Amino acid sequence: MTDPRETGSELQPKWDANGLVTAIVTDARDGTPLMVAHMNADALAATLETGEATFWSRSRARLWKKGETSGHVLRVVEARVDCDQDAIWLRAEPAGPACHTGARSCFYRRIEGGRLVRVEG
Amino acid sequence: MTDPRETGSELQPKWDANGLVTAIVTDARDGTPLMVAHMNADALAATLETGEATFWSRSRARLWKKGETSGHVLRVVEARVDCDQDAIWLRAEPAGPACHTGARSCFYRRIEGGRLVRVEG
Repeated sequence: MTDPRETGSELQPKWDANGLVTAIVTDARDGTPLMVAHMNADALAATLETGEATFWSRSRARLWKKGETSGHVLRVVEARVDCDQDAIWLRAEPAGPACHTGARSCFYRRIEGGRLVRVEG
Repeated sequence: MTDPRETGSELQPKWDANGLVTAIVTDARDGTPLMVAHMNADALAATLETGEATFWSRSRARLWKKGETSGHVLRVVEARVDCDQDAIWLRAEPAGPACHTGARSCFYRRIEGGRLVRVEG
């Protein structure tokens, strides 16, 4: 029952069929979830090497450093991996709004009674 | 440029090719990320109806109420959706460890110098 991937000290991401893992980013200041994106091996390597969050854009099918055009980079303070290593959690300092809509966080709407209610930004 | 999915009040999840969205769960008490999982339409509906986090288990290919065997249910305090509605964020009160390994959170290892270092329970 002891899976080295779950208990060990080796970084061994469990890539999905498309070679991706899920990445969540929280604001290192107060823990607010900012965004969810995906990483392939190159994106994870770039993130760890540069300290700036880099993802794989599924829609554009290319590596995408967050903030490459907006300047709203996410400086990584800490990176963690989950038990089965198919998700990465980045604690980051955002240089600006994390959402392309201009909201601080992509999670600006609450689900209430089956509808969405804007709660910030 | 105004996408109703991003700006509107209609819950309209953007299911992926497998009919899933990503779900992240944080502890409503202090914001700690607890786990990442996936939801299909039935899982999301069950979560919203029952107030207990329910996911789609990709490995077992069935609906999976978190805590159905362990009792460690996640009582949902708030559910949010992200800008393009392909991710759900649940703020929840956990009845016990969220991770099947017994850890409070699945994110119990930090990535340091390409290796993993255990940081909690």
